[in-house]
Amino acid sequence: MLTLPALKADSRVALAGAFDLRREARERFADEFGAPAFDTLDALLYSPVIDAVYIATPHELHAEQAIAALRAGKHVLVEKPMATTLADCARIERAAADAGKVLVVGPSHGFDAPVQAAAQLVASGRFGAVRMVTALNFTDFMFRPRRPEELDSARGGGVVYSQAAHQIDVVRRLVGQPVSSVRAVAANWDSSRPSEGAYTALVTFEAGAAASLTYSGYAHYDSDELVGWIAELGYDKDPDRYGEARKRLATLSSQDEIEAKLKRTYGVPAVAADTPAPHHEHFGFIIVSCDRADLKLSPKGLSIYGDTERDFQPIEPPALPRKEVIDEFVGGCLGIRRPIHDGRWGLDTMACCVALLESSRRNTDVAPNQLLDTLSEKP
Amino acid sequence: MLTLPALKADSRVALAGAFDLRREARERFADEFGAPAFDTLDALLYSPVIDAVYIATPHELHAEQAIAALRAGKHVLVEKPMATTLADCARIERAAADAGKVLVVGPSHGFDAPVQAAAQLVASGRFGAVRMVTALNFTDFMFRPRRPEELDSARGGGVVYSQAAHQIDVVRRLVGQPVSSVRAVAANWDSSRPSEGAYTALVTFEAGAAASLTYSGYAHYDSDELVGWIAELGYDKDPDRYGEARKRLATLSSQDEIEAKLKRTYGVPAVAADTPAPHHEHFGFIIVSCDRADLKLSPKGLSIYGDTERDFQPIEPPALPRKEVIDEFVGGCLGIRRPIHDGRWGLDTMACCVALLESSRRNTDVAPNQLLDTLSEKP
Repeated sequence: MLTLPALKADSRVALAGAFDLRREARERFADEFGAPAFDTLDALLYSPVIDAVYIATPHELHAEQAIAALRAGKHVLVEKPMATTLADCARIERAAADAGKVLVVGPSHGFDAPVQAAAQLVASGRFGAVRMVTALNFTDFMFRPRRPEELDSARGGGVVYSQAAHQIDVVRRLVGQPVSSVRAVAANWDSSRPSEGAYTALVTFEAGAAASLTYSGYAHYDSDELVGWIAELGYDKDPDRYGEARKRLATLSSQDEIEAKLKRTYGVPAVAADTPAPHHEHFGFIIVSCDRADLKLSPKGLSIYGDTERDFQPIEPPALPRKEVIDEFVGGCLGIRRPIHDGRWGLDTMACCVALLESSRRNTDVAPNQLLDTLSEKP
Repeated sequence: MLTLPALKADSRVALAGAFDLRREARERFADEFGAPAFDTLDALLYSPVIDAVYIATPHELHAEQAIAALRAGKHVLVEKPMATTLADCARIERAAADAGKVLVVGPSHGFDAPVQAAAQLVASGRFGAVRMVTALNFTDFMFRPRRPEELDSARGGGVVYSQAAHQIDVVRRLVGQPVSSVRAVAANWDSSRPSEGAYTALVTFEAGAAASLTYSGYAHYDSDELVGWIAELGYDKDPDRYGEARKRLATLSSQDEIEAKLKRTYGVPAVAADTPAPHHEHFGFIIVSCDRADLKLSPKGLSIYGDTERDFQPIEPPALPRKEVIDEFVGGCLGIRRPIHDGRWGLDTMACCVALLESSRRNTDVAPNQLLDTLSEKP
């Protein structure tokens, strides 16, 4: 639902077909786009007019579907996490390489315009070496309506696969160095929602930078306060609507909860139309410390705290949400630019997520690259 | 200078003597308090009218002086860090135990009234288990005028011994559990100021809580923004006076720098008189996450974000700076209350500081208790 406006607005994109198990979604798609909607993935992939496929299904279906699409000769945009196991991520990446097709993992907040602008400033070397990134985000993620698999880590649920994946993408993009090690504590604080709902992690990078990543999906405090009361998706937020998700959840049965969540998908009339967000999306409070400046990211631009002056560099508001993702994917499909968030990128981010969980279980540093090496040694 | 007003105001305290190498300090003390000022420590310790000694000398002198005072039968209040090596801290603690005298390590921000109030709320169990503490502080510590030893880690300089000691005290006090391990990156970003000036650390606690501690003493961004533009010592701060310390430092020679620093000590006429701070002292942005609430500390009180409501619990402004330290020390001397921040507390905090530096050097978790065990195995 969030990516559709950018797809519709891009003149290089035609929505030429869809696959959904739900009849109401298929009917609405056929109506809205005058294109076929299939009830099997194979039928979609068989269509010769389709060049590229966007996979926005539950996490545990990504691997099978992405690999099938790549083997059918389609470019693939797959939502993060690219799959629920590292082995599956590696299989997808291999399938893309074998097929010679473009694979982009997104949307994620690594695509957000302020993140990309800050990453470019860091990479320019204008402020010297990047030394440290401080990232924290306190949300009510664990109290929003959830499908059961969203609360099951083995099926790609919990905040590590769905939220750390964002924060790691952001921090990796900002630092621009390979990750050396992850030391983390991830924990389940609420036995009625059985998955890791919060973590804090220390990430080290090969050229010496370090990052602190903290996330609470159980939060009572709302860190949107630190970014001018703008919500994750770029909308202004009313600080007085305190604790709404938790209050609403307390009134729902588990069946109600699943239905509440399903109401947020395509084909359901209740879903709001395209009211564009006035600001960029964001993933909480983020400071990048370089030798000669600290950069603070905001949904409106970058605050640059330099040696003698501070400056605010506004970033033009987004034309459409997630336009950056469609640009990167379409640019890749058309051979105009090489995607940053490709299969290898997604695999590395997933390796960091697995390292985060492993580190918490084993109480020690875990090197994402070592997890990948172990994987490739297996038959 | 900062603790003197609380000492003067406490009717249980009489300033009965002082020791200083500087004649102008001795003369001013004798004038102001009508009590002897000695030019050797031994002379001071020999005085039978002195029950307790406050040691506010450079860090590297603490061990020898504290041990001498304890052996002379005086109670001791020693500034943090209690000494520059773990072995010396252990020797001081042993000397206090052997002498049966009170030893308090302070002031530190662990004494700040909002920290103590939050610690009591956490310990009450009202909000369930404490799960996570997030602490960050971005200051210009490394750009303020410094004596050479303040920039030499081997002599107790750098931000770990002088600043992490505060942050660790705060976090230990809030969590109220023994520390299991420290994983950290501490780094020197500025070759002209040769000491660790920034760190980020993941601290785990025995009952399962975790804390993220981040400090930059090279900061361009000023995290006092996150606590309502109140400075560390409780004074209101003008956000428009950007980068002053860095600008001033750029104009000073190294001799000027030492003199600028010395101007902040007792006996120098330029030192401002007792203008009391309107708010409590603080050590940056601090959130304590419990099962059923997040607590945000501020120099004015505690924000309590509960399941259904948020609440601000104001804390009465401080009567005098560092009154809490003098209360704890005098209470200990008079046998009224057992000090929290005693020799064992200071030793444990120092062990965390050493663990932080060791972890950064060795790229692995370091257990403070293991450092202490190793110490006691030595002859």
